[in-house]
Amino acid sequence: MNWQKKHVLGIEEMSVEEIYEVFDMGKNYLKAMEKRKHDQIIPDLKGYSAVNLFFEPSTRTRMSFEMAQKLLGMNVVNFQSQGSSLVKGETFIDTVQTIDAMDIDAMVIRHVKPGTPELATEYTKSSVLNGGDGSREHPTQALLDFFTIWNLGYDFRNLKVAIVGDILHSRVARSEIIGLQKLGAEIILVGPPALIPGDLMEQGIKVSHDVDDILEEIDVIYLLRIQKERMAEAFIPHEEEYFKRFGIDKRRLDMTPEHCLVMHPGPVNRGVEIDAEIVNSPKSVILQQVRNGVAIRMALLYLVLKGN
Amino acid sequence: MNWQKKHVLGIEEMSVEEIYEVFDMGKNYLKAMEKRKHDQIIPDLKGYSAVNLFFEPSTRTRMSFEMAQKLLGMNVVNFQSQGSSLVKGETFIDTVQTIDAMDIDAMVIRHVKPGTPELATEYTKSSVLNGGDGSREHPTQALLDFFTIWNLGYDFRNLKVAIVGDILHSRVARSEIIGLQKLGAEIILVGPPALIPGDLMEQGIKVSHDVDDILEEIDVIYLLRIQKERMAEAFIPHEEEYFKRFGIDKRRLDMTPEHCLVMHPGPVNRGVEIDAEIVNSPKSVILQQVRNGVAIRMALLYLVLKGN
Amino acid sequence: MNWQKKHVLGIEEMSVEEIYEVFDMGKNYLKAMEKRKHDQIIPDLKGYSAVNLFFEPSTRTRMSFEMAQKLLGMNVVNFQSQGSSLVKGETFIDTVQTIDAMDIDAMVIRHVKPGTPELATEYTKSSVLNGGDGSREHPTQALLDFFTIWNLGYDFRNLKVAIVGDILHSRVARSEIIGLQKLGAEIILVGPPALIPGDLMEQGIKVSHDVDDILEEIDVIYLLRIQKERMAEAFIPHEEEYFKRFGIDKRRLDMTPEHCLVMHPGPVNRGVEIDAEIVNSPKSVILQQVRNGVAIRMALLYLVLKGN
Repeated sequence: MNWQKKHVLGIEEMSVEEIYEVFDMGKNYLKAMEKRKHDQIIPDLKGYSAVNLFFEPSTRTRMSFEMAQKLLGMNVVNFQSQGSSLVKGETFIDTVQTIDAMDIDAMVIRHVKPGTPELATEYTKSSVLNGGDGSREHPTQALLDFFTIWNLGYDFRNLKVAIVGDILHSRVARSEIIGLQKLGAEIILVGPPALIPGDLMEQGIKVSHDVDDILEEIDVIYLLRIQKERMAEAFIPHEEEYFKRFGIDKRRLDMTPEHCLVMHPGPVNRGVEIDAEIVNSPKSVILQQVRNGVAIRMALLYLVLKGN
Repeated sequence: MNWQKKHVLGIEEMSVEEIYEVFDMGKNYLKAMEKRKHDQIIPDLKGYSAVNLFFEPSTRTRMSFEMAQKLLGMNVVNFQSQGSSLVKGETFIDTVQTIDAMDIDAMVIRHVKPGTPELATEYTKSSVLNGGDGSREHPTQALLDFFTIWNLGYDFRNLKVAIVGDILHSRVARSEIIGLQKLGAEIILVGPPALIPGDLMEQGIKVSHDVDDILEEIDVIYLLRIQKERMAEAFIPHEEEYFKRFGIDKRRLDMTPEHCLVMHPGPVNRGVEIDAEIVNSPKSVILQQVRNGVAIRMALLYLVLKGN
Repeated sequence: MNWQKKHVLGIEEMSVEEIYEVFDMGKNYLKAMEKRKHDQIIPDLKGYSAVNLFFEPSTRTRMSFEMAQKLLGMNVVNFQSQGSSLVKGETFIDTVQTIDAMDIDAMVIRHVKPGTPELATEYTKSSVLNGGDGSREHPTQALLDFFTIWNLGYDFRNLKVAIVGDILHSRVARSEIIGLQKLGAEIILVGPPALIPGDLMEQGIKVSHDVDDILEEIDVIYLLRIQKERMAEAFIPHEEEYFKRFGIDKRRLDMTPEHCLVMHPGPVNRGVEIDAEIVNSPKSVILQQVRNGVAIRMALLYLVLKGN
């Protein structure tokens, strides 16, 4: 193992080699989770301490990290804050320094402001893992998604991935695009014109505004979560209209190749991005993504704390 | 041991034999708690994971489960939500599936909607324990109450229990009635006419609207918590009026037999259901109920996870 | 070791010998924290249980206690409530008795009402640690502050400490004053006249309304956190005005002796009590205070639970 990174700030900061190292380690932890038969934890980080610092609400990412930390035997302290004075940049640094002084080993940070996890690294000796920073990146989500694809035997250099929805405001989309490009996959962005950033089109990434057009040729369809707030802002048509134009129902699912994977970062809006029954259909790997998420976060915690 | 159940959904679903099996196991854990002398946990479920999913606020039930889980060495993750979009049935299933995918062993679920824990069992491989589902059941509360009576040497087949208060809206009352009937006890329901469901009277359960009438003949008086919201809805007279008609003060306590137990699921409204000084009087076993609650929840977790 | 106290209620209740015993034990834990190299906890209280009962919001005190408890191997359950019916005295006792019945070993209590932790001791067999009770005391904060001074080699009998800010409403100030007097230090209170209690002046404690007057002669300057609510109440001049009159900037810092320590209980209002850049300057021990806080809380938990 030759891991050098102390932090996980973004897919942008990672090399292809590092991404594959995360996959290898994630595969080990996935096996360990399956083999443990409930009678043991995997105490590779026993005695290490983690603080989960969430300045935006989160259920799955926080729970997934917490589960990963506890399976590794870490001491875990949660800190949740929203709308409070702590959102101000200055006091954020104060909070980071305070937690740093308590002698912890890893901080997971989610914050509405892009770049906040990186800012934190200047004020702590601990490792920092980005749990989502505004609309910039959500690297652990992207890594668990890539792992899910890879672990099913797909080859990125021979893969066409459609990303469907609000590309413009999505940190998940941003991390997916950066990573899939690094890994050599072909990307098609699908969504209403107002929600696809112009610079991506200029980069030569393929764009489609009609989901039916691209279904037959793709290997993975990645559905982004629609933020209902955005609808109110009128960027996105009404829910039923969105579903009609971009939602995946049985008819559209049947248009995709047999081997096509349906993915979603969760939580799913049933009847908006996807028909309820498709969530658990054979092509869907949405729940595998969740399961793999725990293993990938274990891998990342291990790598940043003991990887070199 | 011959435990077959994977879930704890309600007293309705349990046999008398199962209830006594819980008592035996609970007694063991109560002894273990007393003997441990602070220098050890009782790590019968070390490495197992539990998620406490509370969609309604709770202090005691959540803390009691959490204490039981930690004493058994389990990994514990808490999830609390109220009033959020998660209350919608569809997303509830999504949440259950997501947590299930994280490979946990037990979910404790409290939800305002009756039947929600049972619904969850269709979407998870883990054991589900009902922490209170609307006005349907609160089985762990009832089991710890029955255990408290049994552990003091009382015989249910020779026991008269008065349940006092808002029978109509109480999940605790419902679980108590079903269980006490199974165990062979005699029940008297006491409360304002509007708060005693008609069908129970038709089942032949004795009803009284005057608490003074029944005090001399009972072995247990079980006081339900009055929801102050109900008063506003005018189902229940004003607090002082309620206390005058149904509250237990010293005069009424003295009317009960020497061996009569005073019980309450907590939290007590002092001066409404019961006079402040009676909470800690010799006949009251209210704090024993709390203590036994931890042991009974340990027993249930053990039984559903390792009982067969 | 000859520790007798079961509770930590206030500096008022502690002898000088006890304070030094806390220092000795705190020093051990600080060393243990440094030596552990992430591969072990310090499981002196393994299997013991703690409940953190916070009836007022808190980030640092709660996190510091939680970290201390987890480093010692304790089971930890958090309980947070604010503005709810639980603030009422009567139900507070109920809550304490309920938690007590769950067979826990230590309760940390923060409550807006002075004397609440002491009240709790009447209703629990567990040890009670005061996490801040109204404007009365915040003993663990004071002990970690004293420890920070002592551990840097300063002698209290030869020490002049300025406490700057809202002395009148501050529980931290109250604990500092009582303790520093016991330890033999000289105190100067600095602040607007309306915020310095008259009785302290009558006790002969030196008072100054001009911070510039005292900077040259002090060994420690302890800055209290300004509650912005107080400003609204017009007890305190506007923020900029406060900073101009009492805030520590570079000019004022340079007026203090080389060995002078700058202390603050946190969270710092940068630009109000202190200039942003001074927080991390060589004279500032603000982050050492945080770090020492974990060790001192470990020491206190150990002493009250296993000290005799």
